Amino acid sequence: MQISARNVIKGKVVSVEKGATTAHVKIEIAAGQVVTAAITNDAVDSLKLTVGDEAYAVVKSSDVMIAVD
Amino acid sequence: MQISARNVIKGKVVSVEKGATTAHVKIEIAAGQVVTAAITNDAVDSLKLTVGDEAYAVVKSSDVMIAVD
Amino acid sequence: MQISARNVIKGKVVSVEKGATTAHVKIEIAAGQVVTAAITNDAVDSLKLTVGDEAYAVVKSSDVMIAVD
Amino acid sequence: MQISARNVIKGKVVSVEKGATTAHVKIEIAAGQVVTAAITNDAVDSLKLTVGDEAYAVVKSSDVMIAVD
Amino acid sequence: MQISARNVIKGKVVSVEKGATTAHVKIEIAAGQVVTAAITNDAVDSLKLTVGDEAYAVVKSSDVMIAVD
Amino acid sequence: MQISARNVIKGKVVSVEKGATTAHVKIEIAAGQVVTAAITNDAVDSLKLTVGDEAYAVVKSSDVMIAVD
Repeated sequence: MQISARNVIKGKVVSVEKGATTAHVKIEIAAGQVVTAAITNDAVDSLKLTVGDEAYAVVKSSDVMIAVD
Repeated sequence: MQISARNVIKGKVVSVEKGATTAHVKIEIAAGQVVTAAITNDAVDSLKLTVGDEAYAVVKSSDVMIAVD
Repeated sequence: MQISARNVIKGKVVSVEKGATTAHVKIEIAAGQVVTAAITNDAVDSLKLTVGDEAYAVVKSSDVMIAVD
Repeated sequence: MQISARNVIKGKVVSVEKGATTAHVKIEIAAGQVVTAAITNDAVDSLKLTVGDEAYAVVKSSDVMIAVD
Repeated sequence: MQISARNVIKGKVVSVEKGATTAHVKIEIAAGQVVTAAITNDAVDSLKLTVGDEAYAVVKSSDVMIAVD
Repeated sequence: MQISARNVIKGKVVSVEKGATTAHVKIEIAAGQVVTAAITNDAVDSLKLTVGDEAYAVVKSSDVMIAVD
């Protein structure tokens, strides 16, 4: 499957924390650079996400903001 | 200003393309890893975004998806 | 690729309208039920989206609201 | 009330699962086609969402992605 | 129609700027407090949005961030 | 830090409710006008959000919809 989202960044799952309905999954996309995703517990189960897995962080361009100091 | 968004990734602006109302700004966050942001033309002007600037890509955790091969 | 987004709905591309930077793509997911996506022109090119193509509308659960009459 | 969101899809509530703060509501929009929404528990209470109710899944066009095989 | 989005803020349309596909609509929700919405040109036409109209800014709670100084 | 998000609205924190992973924070932006944000528990801790604090509700323009009666 190829997706329209312009940001598909390869990394490694470093943490999976399930909540009551919402899980937080952290992916290391570069040394020391971790991205946090809030997804459904169902998605964690469906993708069998486990610490150490290769995975991608996927973000639609319209969901990216820019900041400057 | 400190923001609740958990993903604030430092990079360098490599492209600014204004449209009629929506601009696309690309930030290189690591060698060869470019993130695309769709923001308003107004924001580009307000932040004076220019190629070569240091800037941050900011993404709310609830806007990050995970994919696996 | 398998994605965490819980809503992946098969359909057929019925319209592709490129703007200056943002394109509107319409997918018919059932007889008379059309979904509109606002994506980048780049994504339209990259996925070679053309009227008549099979495609999927993909939506993260946290982007779905519920309304009642 | 009429809303700018271009995607308002009629269906029937087939599941309501409250979490600690976030609920997952599933709406069947066509035979076998279920859409999942992650909304606040407050919204579930406020709209009195119950299995069997008619309801609409509402999605802003900028939150819809397209994928192809 | 009643919607799950928890933030429905009444105001007055003070500006409508159509782009190629995406429009920017500004709503004054309090004296001097203006909210900008990026919506489709189609939605502007469909809702017949005109400067001076009463309208609501609608935002899903999961799309609101918090910042502190 | 200056951000591209066009909507940065000052207010006062009136409620902080942590869930298992997702917190709901309410900010009063004008007399009787409260905005709800769904953010991570981590963000609440990191920003040390407490009832009575001054804070800003931040919303990207592409996440704002318009409704009319």
